[in-house]
Amino acid sequence: MTEFQPRSPDFRNWIRPVLGRQPFMQWLGVEVTCCDPGLVELAIRPRPEMTQHTGDLHAGVIAGLADNAAGGAAGTLTVPEGVPVTVEYKINFLAPARGERILARAQVLKPGRTLLIVEARVTAENRGETSLVATMLATMTPVAVPGLKPPPG
Amino acid sequence: MTEFQPRSPDFRNWIRPVLGRQPFMQWLGVEVTCCDPGLVELAIRPRPEMTQHTGDLHAGVIAGLADNAAGGAAGTLTVPEGVPVTVEYKINFLAPARGERILARAQVLKPGRTLLIVEARVTAENRGETSLVATMLATMTPVAVPGLKPPPG
Amino acid sequence: MTEFQPRSPDFRNWIRPVLGRQPFMQWLGVEVTCCDPGLVELAIRPRPEMTQHTGDLHAGVIAGLADNAAGGAAGTLTVPEGVPVTVEYKINFLAPARGERILARAQVLKPGRTLLIVEARVTAENRGETSLVATMLATMTPVAVPGLKPPPG
Amino acid sequence: MTEFQPRSPDFRNWIRPVLGRQPFMQWLGVEVTCCDPGLVELAIRPRPEMTQHTGDLHAGVIAGLADNAAGGAAGTLTVPEGVPVTVEYKINFLAPARGERILARAQVLKPGRTLLIVEARVTAENRGETSLVATMLATMTPVAVPGLKPPPG
Repeated sequence: MTEFQPRSPDFRNWIRPVLGRQPFMQWLGVEVTCCDPGLVELAIRPRPEMTQHTGDLHAGVIAGLADNAAGGAAGTLTVPEGVPVTVEYKINFLAPARGERILARAQVLKPGRTLLIVEARVTAENRGETSLVATMLATMTPVAVPGLKPPPG
Repeated sequence: MTEFQPRSPDFRNWIRPVLGRQPFMQWLGVEVTCCDPGLVELAIRPRPEMTQHTGDLHAGVIAGLADNAAGGAAGTLTVPEGVPVTVEYKINFLAPARGERILARAQVLKPGRTLLIVEARVTAENRGETSLVATMLATMTPVAVPGLKPPPG
Repeated sequence: MTEFQPRSPDFRNWIRPVLGRQPFMQWLGVEVTCCDPGLVELAIRPRPEMTQHTGDLHAGVIAGLADNAAGGAAGTLTVPEGVPVTVEYKINFLAPARGERILARAQVLKPGRTLLIVEARVTAENRGETSLVATMLATMTPVAVPGLKPPPG
Repeated sequence: MTEFQPRSPDFRNWIRPVLGRQPFMQWLGVEVTCCDPGLVELAIRPRPEMTQHTGDLHAGVIAGLADNAAGGAAGTLTVPEGVPVTVEYKINFLAPARGERILARAQVLKPGRTLLIVEARVTAENRGETSLVATMLATMTPVAVPGLKPPPG
């Protein structure tokens, strides 16, 4: 319904380092599998230290991944003037997160100047099958990051 | 308003191992600072690999901590018959999470047989000052955990 | 992703009276514009007494409509054994609700035995244009309604 | 934890007409039972046309009341420069809303310049007993209302 217009045609070059430089994201081993205007998909490969008592991925990891995808999706439309921070989100956990790969795909629903509303879906790839794990609805707001350096190249 | 009645007088002995045995909680270095009927408080000491691009604690860590406190608070009323899993939550981030220690304090608002509604507040202790970092409203449901062993002793 | 299986092939005959018999829904003048397994769409025509101080539809009306669509969507899969009640929802308001007709379209994301997760979108039809007004993520639980009568005919 | 500073010492004179002039609030018969900096309580007396199929108050009415209390609480800190609109909220329904009087009490948790985070509790007074009906966590943003007239007197 909405036309998404990035502030900068170089948005990918700004977004990827912001996502990549976050130590928690590095710990998760996040890979950016899609980065288009208003849309970002991230993927991780679960490791034992990311799990809860049932052996499934911990909700904090699932939510952290979805939150970052949502922030990234918002960021495609706001960098370099602003980098999104999370105002709030709501997440429903629909099924245990098990599998070789977990993906969080976030789509901006409403891009505002001060607020961006983003939806994210988390899916698990398990032995060739994909299942819906969680769904998130988030509000992001862009803030200026003083030290943000121009993209390399 | 509500009288909270644990299923087992031994609830602390059941809850602590469930919280303690989660690998992601171990990675966070979670300490149980309070465990009463319907009320659990957890604390962590931030480390660099838990941060985001601003240097503050990553939202995934804050939410994961609050979520576990909420699950623990619900669990005080449901173990050993059931261990709570998170149906959903909503979290508002109120201020950057900086400081020597981050605390998540969760309180059951409504203990139901199949659903428990829990509120959690996250605060940061920074050079002697305490600030409100986040607030969460969560829905938990108890599930039977087949391999749950009786508490030691 | 999910195959939706109603409990009763007569689900439409059970759902419509439940929606129709609610006095608040009658006051809103709700029309059922779609009723399929896991999917319900409701429509209203705004009246002055439904508005807020800006002249736009009041958020309580928008949320009430979306909530009922979500309950209806869940209900297509649970009647006549259970009629859904709302555990909780989260709603983001994306734009003022203005126009001749307001529609709430709800889709079940995850049909569980005790919990159903439902998404709803609210749109406004204004002079031939359709705009996204709100989006909701809701958790429903079916409860037995003792006096529920069989559908007429 | 936070000191709440209204923009105007006359905030009550600005807030009450904004709440009072909303046609949907008039239809609900809302009474302002408390209005302090960062805190507003509203009350209604349920009528048959506000109910759902169980005979209890419809969730749309409960949420609309809580939402308005939250907006009012935020408004005590923002009028007359801005009147809050609802960005989003999440509400948990804890018990059926039955009784002579339903109260929604909202408290600002975090007053920001562009965003205010507010918590609201809804209680029912039923034959001398008070029960917790719902709890809401909301995000509000102040917007300028061009036609806002100075308070009478």
